[in-house]
Amino acid sequence: MKKGRLIVISGPSGVGKGTVVKALMERDPRVRLSVSATTRPIRPTEIDGVHYYFISHEMFEEMIQKDLFLEHAQYVGNRYGTPEGPVDEMLEQGFDVILEIEVQGGLQVMQRRPDAISVFIAAPSFEILGGRLRGRGDTDEEKVLMRLQQARMEYLVAPQYQYIVVNDRLEDAVSDVQSILRAEALKTEHQQHLLKEAL
Amino acid sequence: MKKGRLIVISGPSGVGKGTVVKALMERDPRVRLSVSATTRPIRPTEIDGVHYYFISHEMFEEMIQKDLFLEHAQYVGNRYGTPEGPVDEMLEQGFDVILEIEVQGGLQVMQRRPDAISVFIAAPSFEILGGRLRGRGDTDEEKVLMRLQQARMEYLVAPQYQYIVVNDRLEDAVSDVQSILRAEALKTEHQQHLLKEAL
Repeated sequence: MKKGRLIVISGPSGVGKGTVVKALMERDPRVRLSVSATTRPIRPTEIDGVHYYFISHEMFEEMIQKDLFLEHAQYVGNRYGTPEGPVDEMLEQGFDVILEIEVQGGLQVMQRRPDAISVFIAAPSFEILGGRLRGRGDTDEEKVLMRLQQARMEYLVAPQYQYIVVNDRLEDAVSDVQSILRAEALKTEHQQHLLKEAL
Repeated sequence: MKKGRLIVISGPSGVGKGTVVKALMERDPRVRLSVSATTRPIRPTEIDGVHYYFISHEMFEEMIQKDLFLEHAQYVGNRYGTPEGPVDEMLEQGFDVILEIEVQGGLQVMQRRPDAISVFIAAPSFEILGGRLRGRGDTDEEKVLMRLQQARMEYLVAPQYQYIVVNDRLEDAVSDVQSILRAEALKTEHQQHLLKEAL
Protein backbone atom coordinates (compact mmCIF):
# COMPACT_ATOMS: atom_id res chain seq x y z
CA MET A 1 0.00 0.00 0.00
CA LYS A 2 1.45 3.32 -1.11
CA LYS A 3 1.47 5.98 1.62
CA GLY A 4 -0.70 9.04 1.14
CA ARG A 5 0.51 12.61 0.93
CA LEU A 6 0.11 15.40 3.47
CA ILE A 7 -1.45 18.48 1.90
CA VAL A 8 -1.57 21.89 3.57
CA ILE A 9 -4.24 24.22 2.24
CA SER A 10 -4.42 27.78 3.53
CA GLY A 11 -5.91 31.02 2.41
CA PRO A 12 -7.77 34.04 3.76
CA SER A 13 -11.18 33.83 5.38
CA GLY A 14 -13.83 34.08 2.67
CA VAL A 15 -11.65 32.80 -0.16
CA GLY A 16 -13.61 29.56 -0.40
CA LYS A 17 -11.01 27.07 0.89
CA GLY A 18 -13.69 24.89 2.44
CA THR A 19 -15.68 24.73 -0.80
CA VAL A 20 -12.58 23.85 -2.81
CA VAL A 21 -11.62 21.13 -0.33
CA LYS A 22 -15.15 19.72 -0.25
CA ALA A 23 -15.35 19.57 -4.07
CA LEU A 24 -11.91 17.96 -4.17
CA MET A 25 -12.98 15.21 -1.78
CA GLU A 26 -16.11 14.59 -3.82
CA ARG A 27 -14.02 14.14 -6.94
CA ASP A 28 -11.29 12.02 -5.36
CA PRO A 29 -12.19 9.37 -2.75
CA ARG A 30 -8.54 8.99 -1.77
CA VAL A 31 -8.55 12.49 -0.24
CA ARG A 32 -9.46 12.91 3.42
CA LEU A 33 -9.75 15.97 5.62
CA SER A 34 -7.94 16.06 8.93
CA VAL A 35 -9.93 16.83 12.10
CA SER A 36 -8.55 19.54 14.39
CA ALA A 37 -8.67 19.67 18.17
CA THR A 38 -9.94 22.81 19.88
CA THR A 39 -10.57 24.15 23.35
CA ARG A 40 -13.57 26.22 22.28
CA PRO A 41 -17.00 25.03 23.45
CA ILE A 42 -18.95 22.68 21.19
CA ARG A 43 -21.89 24.22 19.30
CA PRO A 44 -25.29 22.52 19.12
CA THR A 45 -24.86 21.49 15.47
CA GLU A 46 -21.37 20.08 15.93
CA ILE A 47 -20.27 16.49 16.50
CA ASP A 48 -17.19 15.69 18.58
CA GLY A 49 -14.61 13.90 16.45
CA VAL A 50 -16.24 15.02 13.21
CA HIS A 51 -16.10 18.82 13.19
CA TYR A 52 -13.44 19.00 15.89
CA TYR A 53 -12.08 17.01 18.77
CA PHE A 54 -13.39 19.13 21.65
CA ILE A 55 -10.86 18.99 24.47
CA SER A 56 -10.06 20.92 27.65
CA HIS A 57 -7.33 23.54 28.03
CA GLU A 58 -5.45 21.09 30.30
CA MET A 59 -5.64 18.29 27.75
CA PHE A 60 -4.49 20.68 25.01
CA GLU A 61 -1.53 21.77 27.13
CA GLU A 62 -0.64 18.16 27.86
CA MET A 63 -0.72 17.27 24.15
CA ILE A 64 1.64 20.16 23.43
CA GLN A 65 4.00 18.93 26.14
CA LYS A 66 3.93 15.42 24.65
CA ASP A 67 4.56 16.87 21.16
CA LEU A 68 1.38 15.28 19.78
CA PHE A 69 0.44 18.19 17.49
CA LEU A 70 1.45 18.64 13.87
CA GLU A 71 0.71 22.31 14.45
CA HIS A 72 -1.22 24.41 16.92
CA ALA A 73 -2.21 28.03 17.26
CA GLN A 74 -4.30 30.39 19.33
CA TYR A 75 -7.26 32.29 17.91
CA VAL A 76 -9.55 34.68 19.80
CA GLY A 77 -8.70 33.12 23.15
CA ASN A 78 -9.19 29.53 22.07
CA ARG A 79 -6.61 27.02 20.94
CA TYR A 80 -6.66 24.95 17.79
CA GLY A 81 -4.31 22.15 16.78
CA THR A 82 -3.94 19.14 14.49
CA PRO A 83 -3.24 15.90 16.37
CA GLU A 84 -0.51 14.06 14.44
CA GLY A 85 -1.60 10.48 15.25
CA PRO A 86 -4.88 10.31 13.28
CA VAL A 87 -3.22 12.06 10.33
CA ASP A 88 -0.39 9.53 10.18
CA GLU A 89 -2.88 6.71 10.45
CA MET A 90 -4.78 7.94 7.40
CA LEU A 91 -1.52 8.47 5.50
CA GLU A 92 -0.47 4.90 6.29
CA GLN A 93 -3.81 3.71 4.94
CA GLY A 94 -2.95 5.40 1.64
CA PHE A 95 -5.19 8.44 1.93
CA ASP A 96 -4.05 11.90 0.93
CA VAL A 97 -4.76 14.02 4.01
CA ILE A 98 -5.68 17.68 3.73
CA LEU A 99 -5.00 20.09 6.56
CA GLU A 100 -7.18 23.13 5.99
CA ILE A 101 -5.42 25.49 8.38
CA GLU A 102 -4.36 29.10 8.69
CA VAL A 103 -0.86 30.18 7.69
CA GLN A 104 0.60 30.15 11.20
CA GLY A 105 -0.14 26.42 11.44
CA GLY A 106 0.75 25.88 7.79
CA LEU A 107 4.30 27.08 8.34
CA GLN A 108 4.66 24.80 11.36
CA VAL A 109 3.61 21.79 9.29
CA MET A 110 6.03 22.66 6.45
CA GLN A 111 8.81 22.90 9.01
CA ARG A 112 7.93 19.62 10.70
CA ARG A 113 7.05 17.71 7.53
CA PRO A 114 9.12 19.03 4.63
CA ASP A 115 7.50 16.48 2.29
CA ALA A 116 4.08 18.14 2.71
CA ILE A 117 2.51 19.68 -0.39
CA SER A 118 1.49 23.26 0.35
CA VAL A 119 -1.13 25.25 -1.54
CA PHE A 120 -2.24 28.80 -0.80
CA ILE A 121 -5.68 29.73 -2.12
CA ALA A 122 -5.81 33.39 -3.09
CA ALA A 123 -8.75 35.57 -4.09
CA PRO A 124 -8.92 37.13 -7.57
CA SER A 125 -8.71 40.51 -5.79
CA PHE A 126 -9.30 42.12 -2.41
CA GLU A 127 -12.45 43.75 -3.76
CA ILE A 128 -13.86 40.31 -4.57
CA LEU A 129 -12.72 38.92 -1.22
CA GLY A 130 -14.44 41.79 0.58
CA GLY A 131 -17.55 41.18 -1.47
CA ARG A 132 -17.57 37.50 -0.55
CA LEU A 133 -17.09 38.26 3.14
CA ARG A 134 -19.97 40.76 3.06
CA GLY A 135 -22.11 38.41 0.98
CA ARG A 136 -21.90 35.50 3.39
CA GLY A 137 -23.54 37.42 6.20
CA ASP A 138 -20.53 39.06 7.86
CA THR A 139 -22.40 42.32 7.61
CA ASP A 140 -20.45 43.90 10.46
CA GLU A 141 -18.24 46.14 8.34
CA GLU A 142 -15.56 46.41 10.99
CA LYS A 143 -15.23 42.61 11.10
CA VAL A 144 -14.96 42.52 7.33
CA LEU A 145 -12.20 45.12 7.38
CA MET A 146 -10.38 43.17 10.11
CA ARG A 147 -10.58 39.99 8.02
CA LEU A 148 -9.23 41.87 4.99
CA GLN A 149 -6.39 43.20 7.11
CA GLN A 150 -5.72 39.63 8.24
CA ALA A 151 -5.76 38.52 4.58
CA ARG A 152 -3.05 41.09 3.77
CA MET A 153 -0.83 39.57 6.44
CA GLU A 154 -1.51 36.09 5.05
CA TYR A 155 -0.51 37.22 1.56
CA LEU A 156 2.88 38.16 2.97
CA VAL A 157 3.32 34.57 4.17
CA ALA A 158 1.89 32.95 1.01
CA PRO A 159 5.21 32.96 -0.93
CA GLN A 160 6.42 30.30 1.51
CA TYR A 161 3.82 27.92 0.08
CA GLN A 162 4.78 25.79 -2.94
CA TYR A 163 1.73 26.60 -5.04
CA ILE A 164 -0.68 29.50 -5.32
CA VAL A 165 -4.15 28.85 -6.73
CA VAL A 166 -6.47 31.75 -7.45
CA ASN A 167 -10.06 30.83 -6.64
CA ASP A 168 -11.85 32.70 -9.40
CA ARG A 169 -14.12 29.96 -10.76
CA LEU A 170 -14.53 27.09 -8.27
CA GLU A 171 -14.29 24.42 -11.00
CA ASP A 172 -10.94 25.79 -12.16
CA ALA A 173 -9.54 26.06 -8.65
CA VAL A 174 -10.47 22.45 -7.89
CA SER A 175 -8.92 21.26 -11.16
CA ASP A 176 -5.84 23.30 -10.33
CA VAL A 177 -5.41 21.50 -7.01
CA GLN A 178 -6.08 18.15 -8.67
CA SER A 179 -3.39 18.89 -11.26
CA ILE A 180 -0.96 19.78 -8.49
CA LEU A 181 -1.60 16.49 -6.70
CA ARG A 182 -1.27 14.53 -9.92
CA ALA A 183 1.90 16.30 -11.03
CA GLU A 184 3.50 15.96 -7.59
CA ALA A 185 3.11 12.17 -7.84
CA LEU A 186 4.94 12.25 -11.19
CA LYS A 187 8.01 14.02 -9.84
CA THR A 188 11.14 11.99 -10.49
CA GLU A 189 11.83 11.51 -6.78
CA HIS A 190 8.55 9.56 -6.52
CA GLN A 191 8.79 7.72 -9.86
CA GLN A 192 12.45 6.78 -9.94
CA HIS A 193 11.79 3.37 -8.36
CA LEU A 194 9.83 2.42 -11.50
CA LEU A 195 12.96 2.87 -13.62
CA LYS A 196 15.00 0.75 -11.24
CA GLU A 197 12.34 -1.95 -11.22
CA ALA A 198 12.32 -1.97 -15.02
CA LEU A 199 16.11 -2.24 -15.35
CA MET B 1 1.45 38.54 -23.49
CA LYS B 2 2.78 35.92 -21.12
CA LYS B 3 5.83 34.04 -22.40
CA GLY B 4 5.44 30.32 -23.13
CA ARG B 5 7.34 27.53 -21.44
CA LEU B 6 10.07 25.33 -22.89
CA ILE B 7 9.24 21.64 -22.46
CA VAL B 8 11.71 18.83 -23.01
CA ILE B 9 10.14 15.44 -23.68
CA SER B 10 12.37 12.39 -24.00
CA GLY B 11 11.96 8.66 -23.77
CA PRO B 12 13.08 5.47 -25.46
CA SER B 13 12.28 4.63 -29.06
CA GLY B 14 8.91 2.86 -29.20
CA VAL B 15 7.55 4.38 -25.99
CA GLY B 16 5.03 6.49 -27.87
CA LYS B 17 6.48 9.98 -27.26
CA GLY B 18 5.28 11.20 -30.63
CA THR B 19 1.72 9.99 -30.01
CA VAL B 20 1.64 11.63 -26.56
CA VAL B 21 2.93 14.91 -27.98
CA LYS B 22 0.47 14.83 -30.89
CA ALA B 23 -2.48 14.19 -28.56
CA LEU B 24 -1.27 16.95 -26.26
CA MET B 25 -1.18 19.46 -29.12
CA GLU B 26 -4.68 18.44 -30.20
CA ARG B 27 -5.97 19.10 -26.69
CA ASP B 28 -4.10 22.34 -26.12
CA PRO B 29 -3.70 24.86 -28.95
CA ARG B 30 -1.11 26.80 -26.98
CA VAL B 31 1.37 23.93 -27.35
CA ARG B 32 3.71 23.87 -30.34
CA LEU B 33 6.34 21.38 -31.43
CA SER B 34 9.81 22.62 -32.27
CA VAL B 35 11.32 21.68 -35.65
CA SER B 36 14.81 20.19 -35.64
CA ALA B 37 17.57 20.68 -38.18
CA THR B 38 19.32 17.66 -39.64
CA THR B 39 22.04 16.83 -42.11
CA ARG B 40 20.39 13.60 -43.24
CA PRO B 41 18.84 13.56 -46.75
CA ILE B 42 15.19 14.53 -47.11
CA ARG B 43 12.74 11.64 -47.75
CA PRO B 44 10.05 11.81 -50.46
CA THR B 45 7.19 12.25 -47.91
CA GLU B 46 8.95 14.96 -45.92
CA ILE B 47 8.61 18.75 -46.17
CA ASP B 48 11.55 21.03 -45.44
CA GLY B 49 10.74 23.28 -42.46
CA VAL B 50 7.88 21.04 -41.32
CA HIS B 51 9.42 17.66 -40.49
CA TYR B 52 12.95 19.04 -40.30
CA TYR B 53 15.05 21.88 -41.56
CA PHE B 54 17.26 19.97 -44.01
CA ILE B 55 20.70 21.58 -44.04
CA SER B 56 24.22 20.73 -45.17
CA HIS B 57 27.02 19.51 -42.91
CA GLU B 58 28.79 22.83 -43.51
CA MET B 59 25.73 24.83 -42.49
CA PHE B 60 25.31 22.66 -39.40
CA GLU B 61 28.94 23.20 -38.43
CA GLU B 62 28.59 26.95 -38.93
CA MET B 63 25.48 27.05 -36.73
CA ILE B 64 27.38 25.24 -33.98
CA GLN B 65 30.22 27.75 -34.27
CA LYS B 66 27.73 30.62 -33.98
CA ASP B 67 26.08 28.92 -30.97
CA LEU B 68 22.68 28.88 -32.67
CA PHE B 69 21.59 25.48 -31.32
CA LEU B 70 19.69 24.82 -28.12
CA GLU B 71 21.12 21.30 -28.37
CA HIS B 72 22.66 19.10 -31.01
CA ALA B 73 23.75 15.49 -31.31
CA GLN B 74 25.02 12.93 -33.77
CA TYR B 75 23.03 9.80 -34.64
CA VAL B 76 24.09 7.08 -37.11
CA GLY B 77 26.44 9.41 -38.95
CA ASN B 78 23.95 12.27 -39.27
CA ARG B 79 23.59 15.35 -37.14
CA TYR B 80 20.46 16.64 -35.47
CA GLY B 81 19.94 19.90 -33.62
CA THR B 82 17.32 22.35 -32.39
CA PRO B 83 17.84 25.90 -33.70
CA GLU B 84 17.23 28.28 -30.81
CA GLY B 85 15.83 31.22 -32.78
CA PRO B 86 12.49 29.76 -33.92
CA VAL B 87 11.92 28.28 -30.45
CA ASP B 88 12.44 31.64 -28.74
CA GLU B 89 10.15 33.28 -31.26
CA MET B 90 7.32 30.87 -30.41
CA LEU B 91 7.96 31.32 -26.68
CA GLU B 92 7.75 35.10 -27.09
CA GLN B 93 4.43 34.65 -28.88
CA GLY B 94 3.15 32.85 -25.78
CA PHE B 95 3.27 29.27 -27.04
CA ASP B 96 4.52 26.41 -24.93
CA VAL B 97 7.20 24.78 -27.08
CA ILE B 98 7.90 21.06 -26.89
CA LEU B 99 11.28 19.66 -27.82
CA GLU B 100 10.83 15.97 -28.50
CA ILE B 101 14.47 14.95 -28.33
CA GLU B 102 16.71 12.15 -27.06
CA VAL B 103 18.33 12.36 -23.65
CA GLN B 104 21.72 13.59 -24.90
CA GLY B 105 20.04 16.70 -26.29
CA GLY B 106 17.64 16.87 -23.35
CA LEU B 107 20.47 17.27 -20.88
CA GLN B 108 22.03 20.02 -23.01
CA VAL B 109 18.75 21.95 -22.97
CA MET B 110 18.36 21.58 -19.18
CA GLN B 111 21.90 22.93 -18.75
CA ARG B 112 21.36 25.84 -21.12
CA ARG B 113 17.81 26.65 -20.02
CA PRO B 114 17.35 25.74 -16.36
CA ASP B 115 13.74 26.98 -16.51
CA ALA B 116 12.79 24.24 -18.98
CA ILE B 117 10.23 21.68 -17.82
CA SER B 118 11.60 18.18 -18.41
CA VAL B 119 9.52 15.03 -18.74
CA PHE B 120 10.80 11.53 -19.37
CA ILE B 121 8.28 9.11 -20.87
CA ALA B 122 8.90 5.56 -19.67
CA ALA B 123 7.35 2.28 -20.78
CA PRO B 124 5.31 0.15 -18.33
CA SER B 125 8.04 -2.51 -18.74
CA PHE B 126 10.82 -3.58 -21.08
CA GLU B 127 8.70 -6.50 -22.25
CA ILE B 128 5.99 -4.09 -23.36
CA LEU B 129 8.55 -1.77 -24.96
CA GLY B 130 10.03 -4.72 -26.88
CA GLY B 131 6.53 -5.74 -27.93
CA ARG B 132 5.79 -2.23 -29.19
CA LEU B 133 9.06 -2.08 -31.14
CA ARG B 134 8.35 -5.45 -32.76
CA GLY B 135 4.71 -4.54 -33.38
CA ARG B 136 5.46 -1.38 -35.29
CA GLY B 137 7.32 -3.23 -38.02
CA ASP B 138 10.86 -3.24 -36.61
CA THR B 139 10.90 -6.96 -37.26
CA ASP B 140 14.70 -7.12 -37.39
CA GLU B 141 15.25 -8.67 -33.95
CA GLU B 142 18.82 -7.41 -33.66
CA LYS B 143 17.61 -3.84 -34.19
CA VAL B 144 14.94 -4.34 -31.54
CA LEU B 145 17.54 -5.60 -29.05
CA MET B 146 19.81 -2.65 -29.86
CA ARG B 147 16.91 -0.24 -29.22
CA LEU B 148 16.18 -1.94 -25.90
CA GLN B 149 19.85 -1.67 -24.95
CA GLN B 150 19.68 2.01 -25.87
CA ALA B 151 16.54 2.33 -23.71
CA ARG B 152 18.42 0.91 -20.72
CA MET B 153 21.05 3.62 -21.10
CA GLU B 154 18.32 6.26 -21.33
CA TYR B 155 16.75 5.02 -18.12
CA LEU B 156 20.04 5.72 -16.36
CA VAL B 157 19.79 9.35 -17.49
CA ALA B 158 16.05 9.70 -16.78
CA PRO B 159 16.47 10.62 -13.07
CA GLN B 160 17.91 13.93 -14.27
CA TYR B 161 14.49 14.83 -15.68
CA GLN B 162 11.99 16.58 -13.38
CA TYR B 163 9.05 14.28 -14.09
CA ILE B 164 8.63 10.67 -15.16
CA VAL B 165 5.41 9.66 -16.90
CA VAL B 166 4.69 6.00 -17.60
CA ASN B 167 2.92 5.59 -20.93
CA ASP B 168 0.62 2.71 -20.12
CA ARG B 169 -2.71 4.06 -21.38
CA LEU B 170 -2.22 6.95 -23.84
CA GLU B 171 -5.13 8.95 -22.36
CA ASP B 172 -3.57 8.79 -18.89
CA ALA B 173 -0.11 9.73 -20.12
CA VAL B 174 -1.47 12.78 -21.96
CA SER B 175 -3.46 13.85 -18.89
CA ASP B 176 -0.33 13.36 -16.79
CA VAL B 177 1.64 15.75 -18.99
CA GLN B 178 -1.26 18.22 -19.00
CA SER B 179 -1.36 18.12 -15.20
CA ILE B 180 2.38 18.76 -15.07
CA LEU B 181 2.06 21.82 -17.31
CA ARG B 182 -0.90 23.12 -15.32
CA ALA B 183 0.77 22.55 -11.93
CA GLU B 184 4.05 24.10 -13.08
CA ALA B 185 2.19 27.32 -13.88
CA LEU B 186 0.78 27.36 -10.34
CA LYS B 187 4.16 27.20 -8.65
CA THR B 188 4.64 30.11 -6.29
CA GLU B 189 7.58 31.50 -8.30
CA HIS B 190 5.18 32.03 -11.24
CA GLN B 191 2.15 33.18 -9.22
CA GLN B 192 3.77 35.44 -6.65
CA HIS B 193 3.24 38.55 -8.76
CA LEU B 194 -0.52 38.07 -8.32
CA LEU B 195 -0.16 38.50 -4.57
CA LYS B 196 1.91 41.62 -5.02
CA GLU B 197 -0.62 43.05 -7.45
CA ALA B 198 -3.43 42.36 -4.96
CA LEU B 199 -1.65 44.02 -2.04
